[in-house]
Amino acid sequence: MPKDWSGSRLDLHLSLDTAGGRRSGLESALRAAIREGRLPAGALLPSTRGLAGELGLSRGTVSAAYGQLAEEGYLTTRPGSGTSVAEVPRDLPGTARHLPGPRTPRHDLRPGLPDVAAFPVRAWLAATRRVLTHARPEVFGAGEPQGRIELRVALAGYLGRTRGVVTTPDRIVITSGHYQGLGLLCGALVAGGARVAAVEDPGHNAFRDVVRRAGFTVVALPVDARGARTGELTGREAAAFLTPSHQYPTGVPLCPGRRRALCAWARSTGGLVVEDDYDGEYRYDRRPVGALQGVAPDRVVYCGTVSKTLGPALRLAWMVLPPQLVEPVTRAKRHADLYTETLGQLVLADLITTHAYDRHVRAARLRYRRRRALLLDRVAAVPGLVAHGVPAGLHTLLTLPPGGPAEDDLLARCARRGLALRGLTELHHDPAGRARGLLVGFGAPSERAYPAALDALLTVLADAFGGAPGRPGP
Amino acid sequence: MPKDWSGSRLDLHLSLDTAGGRRSGLESALRAAIREGRLPAGALLPSTRGLAGELGLSRGTVSAAYGQLAEEGYLTTRPGSGTSVAEVPRDLPGTARHLPGPRTPRHDLRPGLPDVAAFPVRAWLAATRRVLTHARPEVFGAGEPQGRIELRVALAGYLGRTRGVVTTPDRIVITSGHYQGLGLLCGALVAGGARVAAVEDPGHNAFRDVVRRAGFTVVALPVDARGARTGELTGREAAAFLTPSHQYPTGVPLCPGRRRALCAWARSTGGLVVEDDYDGEYRYDRRPVGALQGVAPDRVVYCGTVSKTLGPALRLAWMVLPPQLVEPVTRAKRHADLYTETLGQLVLADLITTHAYDRHVRAARLRYRRRRALLLDRVAAVPGLVAHGVPAGLHTLLTLPPGGPAEDDLLARCARRGLALRGLTELHHDPAGRARGLLVGFGAPSERAYPAALDALLTVLADAFGGAPGRPGP
Repeated sequence: MPKDWSGSRLDLHLSLDTAGGRRSGLESALRAAIREGRLPAGALLPSTRGLAGELGLSRGTVSAAYGQLAEEGYLTTRPGSGTSVAEVPRDLPGTARHLPGPRTPRHDLRPGLPDVAAFPVRAWLAATRRVLTHARPEVFGAGEPQGRIELRVALAGYLGRTRGVVTTPDRIVITSGHYQGLGLLCGALVAGGARVAAVEDPGHNAFRDVVRRAGFTVVALPVDARGARTGELTGREAAAFLTPSHQYPTGVPLCPGRRRALCAWARSTGGLVVEDDYDGEYRYDRRPVGALQGVAPDRVVYCGTVSKTLGPALRLAWMVLPPQLVEPVTRAKRHADLYTETLGQLVLADLITTHAYDRHVRAARLRYRRRRALLLDRVAAVPGLVAHGVPAGLHTLLTLPPGGPAEDDLLARCARRGLALRGLTELHHDPAGRARGLLVGFGAPSERAYPAALDALLTVLADAFGGAPGRPGP
Repeated sequence: MPKDWSGSRLDLHLSLDTAGGRRSGLESALRAAIREGRLPAGALLPSTRGLAGELGLSRGTVSAAYGQLAEEGYLTTRPGSGTSVAEVPRDLPGTARHLPGPRTPRHDLRPGLPDVAAFPVRAWLAATRRVLTHARPEVFGAGEPQGRIELRVALAGYLGRTRGVVTTPDRIVITSGHYQGLGLLCGALVAGGARVAAVEDPGHNAFRDVVRRAGFTVVALPVDARGARTGELTGREAAAFLTPSHQYPTGVPLCPGRRRALCAWARSTGGLVVEDDYDGEYRYDRRPVGALQGVAPDRVVYCGTVSKTLGPALRLAWMVLPPQLVEPVTRAKRHADLYTETLGQLVLADLITTHAYDRHVRAARLRYRRRRALLLDRVAAVPGLVAHGVPAGLHTLLTLPPGGPAEDDLLARCARRGLALRGLTELHHDPAGRARGLLVGFGAPSERAYPAALDALLTVLADAFGGAPGRPGP
């Protein structure tokens, strides 16, 4: 027997929105009524003729709507017994808990971020227009796992000119950010039989996790004032992951003797050096030291990115590989996501070729140089704090004096003021008994916001160290 | 003793390009001379005073260049014994073999590709300008692993309106193409204990490989004229991967009874249905059947992409997930590449919100509808060929009559004419004794190129089948 259909007319009428057509409006109304439980499972629907009359629609419209909903699974039609409502879950059965997106802190002194307020919007837009206007249609079709040839050609020239990298375009693989690239490289190495990796200690903990997750056994490569202690490498490690130009987080470059020792290690053991040149564009006291890759292109993977120059949102990075690794890494890229999106690659190639990228980097370098000087000047007033590293990059490591304020206390005080930075502890492989400190980034804030961020930092330090808050901001 | 330095002046002079400054030019010349072997390892360099005199440079310039190259590892400086050339590999030790990029065939009838010559360049550019002009700087900073909220909000509305998908933005995860999304989903399912997956047979072989590579044991889910035979699912499968709206490659929709059976299987066994709605925008004879997800949002993952509407180069796709899968899939995305690039997401969100995306899809639908009719009209003249599937999508499956031309022979004939399409064989899990056929895509060519592509196909078919070449193109 049909269930009670009374009241349906009002319900359906209420939600009958015919802006998209009568049939569409009826379908939507029926779907909603079924989902909300107003038309329960098993309910027999009126005949098409009956409902058409009730709603002032043609019988064909109702019939078509019933057919559509039967196809979609909302209704069941059995010959001889009419159309009834199928088992359908009521409405949305509980939404997933909200995953909050990243929030920008009030004072952003996190290391490793550039000033995104200085993103070259006009240059990017102009390059996009050039690329889209002159694009052959194929650029919107399937891409290349290794990356667009236009970008690889532009990078081969740029990296040779600015970083002393020795490469041809066919040795470059484009990835959706260095994080992805590192994962693909590690996956290819482990698939090829590699087992043990040396990783700088302290070093970037997220990248250490990537190396470990790929299947490597990670051994610590200790870092001192001359960079990673390459003399501690043995024949056991298949690969050594380093930041030779500007060690993360200590900020010291790998000294010439150790660069030589590292290359000798790679040659004699067949080990691979992975050179993360994460902020190689930024050296403030002298010309940057060329990439290690230029001295041993057959044993070094060179990794670079636009994340510190343009912004991480673009997800564009590159690896320059020894020849035997090009195919395995390209295959890993294809297996991961086929290829990196094309438009961003072409726009970046255009910016590099037209030197707009150089101009942007040069302006950024001047800005960050001033910011670093200002930071060091201010913290010099805090007794016991020691600033490490050469004038370079987007952050400075400040180590804390023994017996002074604790790192976690300082981080908590910063957080309470809306000030974001990082502690040194989590960057040690095993933090027990190791130095404590703060990594202060000077790249992220806008030019306007930077002085207030410094003031906030100095206020926290003065409170914690019990001294004067340093000189006020400019 | 110093090695012979004679001739060095000429060599260095020849390559001394001082456009970038004297010191830089000297450094480049020395690097090149060392790499090319003109300055061999161990060679003692002239004193800074001597070289400065030879080249007409200041002594400070030469000294600075020596220092720079020592830092970079090209030179070795030992107190008391001067500066000598270090061990550096000569030039580039053999470049990697060239990995050819994708080439567009002369006649492109590959299935699953849209006409990229119709990419909405002006609309995309206008949306890019709006996005970049109004962007808060944070959009260039770190993104969200789940995808930009702007795009998830736009998609929740769009998918509800056009595909009957029931979702809120917090159930959507944005990925860099469906291929990546499928890999991430499978990885998360396997990590959660899933072991056996049912995959349509025939079905997309590249996607079947993704499922298998993630660690699933793949079982075949046979397909007949009413779609996948869902009655053959048992309690063993943790997940079933289907194309319910337009089965790939047969082109049939899953019939209402089997849609119900599939949902019942999912509810009773706890199995997950993965609905690949790869070309759900294109139905030509009626309104599209709504997504299966709308009937069982708690048991169905809905997958969509812009690859068939705008182009695969954009690498933008989405998954609508049951609540319990949002966190594991988002974590898998973060581990893979942190997040998908931001600008493309914001531009797509703008296109959807301003309905430019709808307009583009509607125009494309009319175009492909005409093309499909033209294709079927032409191949109807070839005796024994059977066209399958409903009027939908971007391809048609033509099966070959027993005793007629062989699939591999036809594919070879096509290749010789520069005509690209696909064979059915590789889409079977086990091709032995299964139907042979051609998958003919009608999306990829430009409007201008399509008639010639059809002519080429019909010529091949006429040659192979020994009949008349069908009617000539319009």
